[in-house]
Amino acid sequence: MTQKIAILGASGYTGAELVRLIATHPSMEIVALAAERKAGLSMVEVFPHLRHLDLPSLVKIDEIDFTGIDLCFCALPHKTSQQVISALPRDLKIVDLSADFRLRDPEAYAKWYGNAHSAVEMQGEAVYGLTEFYRADIAKARLVAGTGCNAATGQFALRPLIAAGLIDLDDIIMDLKVGVSGAGRSLKENLLHAELSEGSNAYAVGGTHRHLGEFDQEFSAIAGREVKIQFTPHLAPFNRGILATCYVKGDAQAIHNALETAYDDEPFIEVLHFGATPSTHDVRGSNFCHIGVSGDRIAGRAIVTAALDNLTKGSSGQALQNANLMLGLEETAGLMLAPVFP
Amino acid sequence: MTQKIAILGASGYTGAELVRLIATHPSMEIVALAAERKAGLSMVEVFPHLRHLDLPSLVKIDEIDFTGIDLCFCALPHKTSQQVISALPRDLKIVDLSADFRLRDPEAYAKWYGNAHSAVEMQGEAVYGLTEFYRADIAKARLVAGTGCNAATGQFALRPLIAAGLIDLDDIIMDLKVGVSGAGRSLKENLLHAELSEGSNAYAVGGTHRHLGEFDQEFSAIAGREVKIQFTPHLAPFNRGILATCYVKGDAQAIHNALETAYDDEPFIEVLHFGATPSTHDVRGSNFCHIGVSGDRIAGRAIVTAALDNLTKGSSGQALQNANLMLGLEETAGLMLAPVFP
Amino acid sequence: MTQKIAILGASGYTGAELVRLIATHPSMEIVALAAERKAGLSMVEVFPHLRHLDLPSLVKIDEIDFTGIDLCFCALPHKTSQQVISALPRDLKIVDLSADFRLRDPEAYAKWYGNAHSAVEMQGEAVYGLTEFYRADIAKARLVAGTGCNAATGQFALRPLIAAGLIDLDDIIMDLKVGVSGAGRSLKENLLHAELSEGSNAYAVGGTHRHLGEFDQEFSAIAGREVKIQFTPHLAPFNRGILATCYVKGDAQAIHNALETAYDDEPFIEVLHFGATPSTHDVRGSNFCHIGVSGDRIAGRAIVTAALDNLTKGSSGQALQNANLMLGLEETAGLMLAPVFP
Amino acid sequence: MTQKIAILGASGYTGAELVRLIATHPSMEIVALAAERKAGLSMVEVFPHLRHLDLPSLVKIDEIDFTGIDLCFCALPHKTSQQVISALPRDLKIVDLSADFRLRDPEAYAKWYGNAHSAVEMQGEAVYGLTEFYRADIAKARLVAGTGCNAATGQFALRPLIAAGLIDLDDIIMDLKVGVSGAGRSLKENLLHAELSEGSNAYAVGGTHRHLGEFDQEFSAIAGREVKIQFTPHLAPFNRGILATCYVKGDAQAIHNALETAYDDEPFIEVLHFGATPSTHDVRGSNFCHIGVSGDRIAGRAIVTAALDNLTKGSSGQALQNANLMLGLEETAGLMLAPVFP
Repeated sequence: MTQKIAILGASGYTGAELVRLIATHPSMEIVALAAERKAGLSMVEVFPHLRHLDLPSLVKIDEIDFTGIDLCFCALPHKTSQQVISALPRDLKIVDLSADFRLRDPEAYAKWYGNAHSAVEMQGEAVYGLTEFYRADIAKARLVAGTGCNAATGQFALRPLIAAGLIDLDDIIMDLKVGVSGAGRSLKENLLHAELSEGSNAYAVGGTHRHLGEFDQEFSAIAGREVKIQFTPHLAPFNRGILATCYVKGDAQAIHNALETAYDDEPFIEVLHFGATPSTHDVRGSNFCHIGVSGDRIAGRAIVTAALDNLTKGSSGQALQNANLMLGLEETAGLMLAPVFP
Repeated sequence: MTQKIAILGASGYTGAELVRLIATHPSMEIVALAAERKAGLSMVEVFPHLRHLDLPSLVKIDEIDFTGIDLCFCALPHKTSQQVISALPRDLKIVDLSADFRLRDPEAYAKWYGNAHSAVEMQGEAVYGLTEFYRADIAKARLVAGTGCNAATGQFALRPLIAAGLIDLDDIIMDLKVGVSGAGRSLKENLLHAELSEGSNAYAVGGTHRHLGEFDQEFSAIAGREVKIQFTPHLAPFNRGILATCYVKGDAQAIHNALETAYDDEPFIEVLHFGATPSTHDVRGSNFCHIGVSGDRIAGRAIVTAALDNLTKGSSGQALQNANLMLGLEETAGLMLAPVFP
Repeated sequence: MTQKIAILGASGYTGAELVRLIATHPSMEIVALAAERKAGLSMVEVFPHLRHLDLPSLVKIDEIDFTGIDLCFCALPHKTSQQVISALPRDLKIVDLSADFRLRDPEAYAKWYGNAHSAVEMQGEAVYGLTEFYRADIAKARLVAGTGCNAATGQFALRPLIAAGLIDLDDIIMDLKVGVSGAGRSLKENLLHAELSEGSNAYAVGGTHRHLGEFDQEFSAIAGREVKIQFTPHLAPFNRGILATCYVKGDAQAIHNALETAYDDEPFIEVLHFGATPSTHDVRGSNFCHIGVSGDRIAGRAIVTAALDNLTKGSSGQALQNANLMLGLEETAGLMLAPVFP
Repeated sequence: MTQKIAILGASGYTGAELVRLIATHPSMEIVALAAERKAGLSMVEVFPHLRHLDLPSLVKIDEIDFTGIDLCFCALPHKTSQQVISALPRDLKIVDLSADFRLRDPEAYAKWYGNAHSAVEMQGEAVYGLTEFYRADIAKARLVAGTGCNAATGQFALRPLIAAGLIDLDDIIMDLKVGVSGAGRSLKENLLHAELSEGSNAYAVGGTHRHLGEFDQEFSAIAGREVKIQFTPHLAPFNRGILATCYVKGDAQAIHNALETAYDDEPFIEVLHFGATPSTHDVRGSNFCHIGVSGDRIAGRAIVTAALDNLTKGSSGQALQNANLMLGLEETAGLMLAPVFP
C-alpha cells in the first residue's frame, strides 16, 4: 500500500532532499507540496533537477486537504514550524525537520531560540528523532522532532561513550567542519561562492550555537548529571557533509569497542577499524554515518571522528527513516542509496 | 531472478559508479570484481564509500570463474580491453566501457588510438552503446561498446537534427565544459586539486580529441555523407558533469521541435522549454540528460546545449541501461535515482 | 609626488580590488572611500582582508571634498554611475568602471541597458578604456570608461585579426567560461556556493548579453562595416578568471603571427607559442592576459583562446593602468604583481 | 644594491611562491634556479603563470656557480636538503624551507623523520626561522631553518600565552584545517581534485604529525618544562590557507590582552578584536596572520584561532622575511602585498 505524503517547506534544500529520496522509495507517494513564497510555481521551476518526476505544484499550506494524507514532513523555519504544526489535524503523523520540538524544556527552548514556545503542549508529545536511540518511541509517535544536523553527528560519536561512562564528562571538545548546505538557501554574503569557496573560518564560537541545547539535553539525560561540552563549528567549502572531531579523555581502545558494540546491528552507522579516519567524501548523498577512533600520543586521550551528510543522515534521510518507522514500513526503505563518489 | 554480474576494472571511477548503481538495482548481484594492480584488496580499501555493501574482494581477471555469470562489465583501459574481451567466454554478455569497440572501422581505430586493433573480428559484432539510438540492436547484442562520455553528450544534442536535415553539416561547432572525473583516477599534475580548482583551460584543441572518431562515424552515417565537426573540450573545476554548447546553423524553433519529438518518450532525455538552458548541477549523480535550445540574434543560428553526468549517463549509467536491455530487464531498472542537488 | 585617489563604490569586489592594487602602488594614496549603504563603516568591517592598511572610513559620496583629489575611480552600478559622475567637479579626472560610458551611441546604450542615458553630453568626452588600443587618447582624457570584463577578453583575442582582415567577419563565435566574481557581490540564489560550485551552465544565450554592445561598437569600427558576433557566456565554479574560446575562419598561422606582432611590446599581453592554450589559473590575481592560437583539423579554421582575471585586467587592473596614463605615471606602476598560483 | 638570489628546488609550490614574491621585491634579483628532474626546462614550461618574468632556466644544483650569490633559498625535500646544504659554500647565506634544520636535537630529528641526520654539525648553526620570535638571531645567522607551516600557525596563536604562563600546559588541543598546497605537488590519489574537493577528513591523527617535533621543542623551551600538545590536522578543499583552532584553559580576556601586547608592533600579525574570528579567505596570497580570541560558555576556557597562507607566511613569505633580515634589508620588503579576495 502506498503511503500518501505531504511536504511543507518544499522549496528549501531539505525539502528537495526529501523529494529526492522519496522519488525511489518503494511505498510512498508525494501528494502535496507547500512553499509559501513560491506557491503557484511548479517544483521544476524551483528545483530543475527534479524535472523527471511527476510532482504536484507548490501550494500554500492552507490550500492542502490533509484528508487521506498519511504523513506530513515539515521543513519550515523554526517558530513558523510550531505555529503551522499546532494547526494541523490532530491525527496526522508529522515529522518536523525544524528545531521547534527538539528541546523538551520550554525554558531551554526560549534560551536558545530567543522566543517563548507557542505550542508548549505539543512539546511533551514530540519524540526526539535520533532514530538509533529513540527507535521504539518513534515507531509509536505521532510527532517526531528531527535533530539538528550537527547535533546528530556529535551524538553518534559520543552517546555510547557517555552511556558507558568511558569518558571524562567535564572535558569534551567537539570541533566541526560543516558543509555549506547546512546554512540553507539563505541569501547571505558569506554564503556566496566568491566569499565561501577557497577558505574556512569558525563561527558561533564559544558555546553560542543553538545545537548545544540538544547536546546539553541529551548528554545530561544519558549521564544523569549536567554535561556541557565545548563546541566550535567551522564553515568549509563543500556543499554536503559534516565532520565532527571529538577530543575526549578515556581509553581509546575501550571507546572503540563500545562504539563497535553499540552500532553492530545498525544499518546506517559504520564504525571503522581502530585508527582509521572517516571522510565526508565517503558518505555524500547517503544516509550513512562513518565513525573512527584513534588514540593520542598522550595516554588516556582519544579522538573520535564522525562523518555524515547533513542533508541526508543529518536531516531529510533521518526524517525518512523515522517516517518509515511511524508508518510501519521497513526502516531502511528508500534509504540504501550508496554514497556518490567522486 | 537475480542476474549475476562481474565487473572488470573495478578500481576506477566508472567501476565504482557501476557498483553504486547496482547497489540499489532490483535484480542484479555483483559476484566478481577484478582489478589487476589492486587484486587482493577488499573493495572498501579501494573505495571506502562502498563500506555498507557486501561485495566480493578484488581479484585478478584470470581468477574469475565466469560460469554462471550473466553479464560482465569491462571498465578497463582501451587496448587492454580488447585483449581481455577477446579471451572471455564466447557466450558471455559483455558491456565494454572502454573505447575499444566504439569505432567500427579498424583504420579509424588505428588513426585515433595509435595502435592496430588486436580483435578486429569482434569489432563487427559489437553494437554502439548509445541506447536511445541503438536500442533494438543492443537488446540482441552479446557485446555492447559504451560510448565516449563527450561523444554521448554531443550526440544527444545533434543526432536528431542531422537526421532531420535541419542544420548545416559543414559548420557545426561543439564547445564542451568537462568535469574532472572524466580523466579518471590518473595521477597527473594538472588533475591535482591545487592545480585544477579555481580555473579553466581548453585541451585537445583543434580536432585532436579521440571522441571525434565517434562523432565522425555516427554523424556521417546518419547524414549519408562525411560530417566533420569542430570540437573543443575545456577542463572545468567540478567532478561530475559535461556541458556541451553546440553552435549550429538552422532554424532554432524547428530544432527545438525536432528534439522534443525525438525524445518525447525517452525516460532519461529531457528537452527544456525553448530558450531555457540546462545546468550540469541538475543532472549530477543521475542518468538524465537535459537539453536546451535557444535562437541567436543572428537569424538562422541556434545554440543547443546538453548536460549530463559523465560517470552516469556518460558511462556507467549508460552501461547499466544497456545491460538491462541485454538481460531482458526493464530498461530503467536501478537508474531512476534523482539527481543530487545541491 | 603622491597622487590622491578617491574610490566611489568601494564596498564591491572591484572597489576592493582597486584598494588591493593601490596598496602597493608606489605613488598613489587613497584619501576617500565611498559606499552609500555601508557609509559609516570602516573598510575592515566590509573587507577584513584589508585590515593591515590604514584606510579612510567609508562615507557617502556627497561627504567627500574633492579638492586636492587627483583622480576618482567610480565602481558604481550603471545608471547610478552616470548620475554621480555628471555631478562631480568638471576638472576631476575620472576612471569609471561601470557600463555607463562604454557605448558612444546613446541609442545603443538605451537598447542594451533599457534606459535613456542621462548624461549624453559626457558620452562624447569619455574614452573607451581598452588601454592597449586607446593608449594615446586615454593619456589625454579626463573621463575614461572601463570596458566590460568579457568585452576586454574577447577584444584582446580578436581586434588585431579584424584590423588585419584575417578572419571572416560574418562567422565569429565566442564561447566564454566566466568566474563568479564577475557577477559582483549580489545576493542571488544561483551565486550561492551550494548552487554554483560543482557545475556549469550557459546564461544570456543567443545574443542578449550587454557586453555585445561593446563588441558591436568596437569590431564594427575597426572593420568599417557592421560586425555581429555570436557570444555565449557560461558560469563556471571559480572566483576569478575569464576564458574566451573564439572560433574563427582564417589562417591559424597568420592569425598567430598577427597577434604576436600586435602585442610584441605590450607589458601585459602574452601570446603563447602556436598550439599552446592559456589557462585562467595562470593569470589569477594579476593584470596579465594570455592568448593562444591553434589551427583546426578543418582547414581554414582557427581557435583563439584568451585568459585574464576579470577583477584585475578585466576591470580594476585595467582601471589602474588607465589612471597611471592619465596621471602621467609609468603605465605599469603597481601592476606587475605576479599571478597567484596555486 | 641588488642582492643576487638562487633558489634550489624551484619546481615546487614553495619555489614558485618565492619567485612570485621576489618578482616585485625592490632589491633582489634571481640569478639561478635549480630543479633536478626538470633541469633544462625553462621556468615557463614548469610554471606558465611566471611567463612575464625574465628568469634563468632550470639547472642542476651542481651547475650553479655560487660566486657572487648573496643568498640561497633551499626548497628541497627533507633529507635531500641536509645533503645539499652541507655541500654548499661555507660563506653562503642560506634559508632552508625544508624540515632538516628545524629540530635542534638530532635524536628528535631521527624520531620524527625516521633517519639519522647527516649534517649534525650544522644543526647547531641553524636558527629557527619563526621571524617574530628569533628576529635578532636570524639577522646574524648564516643558515635559517624555515618552520613547518602548521607549526608556524600554532605558534603564533600560543607562544605568548605559554611565555606568560596564561594557559594550562597539560591541556592544549590544536585542530587544524589545512589547504591542499601544503601537501606540495606530489601525485597522490587523495590530492586529486575528484577525491579532495567537496569534503574533508582528518589525517595524522593521534600525535603522529611531524610538525609536533617543532611544537614540542619550542613550547617546552618557552615553558621551561616538557609541553606536549594534542594536534589534529584536517585536509580541507582549498588551495591556500591554514586555520588553527586552539582549545586552551585560561582566562580569555587575559589571553587576548597578551596576544595584543605581543604583536602590537608586528607588521604581519593582526590580532582581531575580542570575540572576532579570522578566516583564511582574508589572508590568501599574503604574508599576514590573523588571530582571534573568544571565551567559552564554560568559564576558564578560551578558543584561540589563527589563519595564515601556508605558502606565504607559512613558508615562502616567512623565508623572504628572514632573508631580508639576513641581508640587512627592510624586513617587510616585497612582502606588503595585500591578500587576494575574493
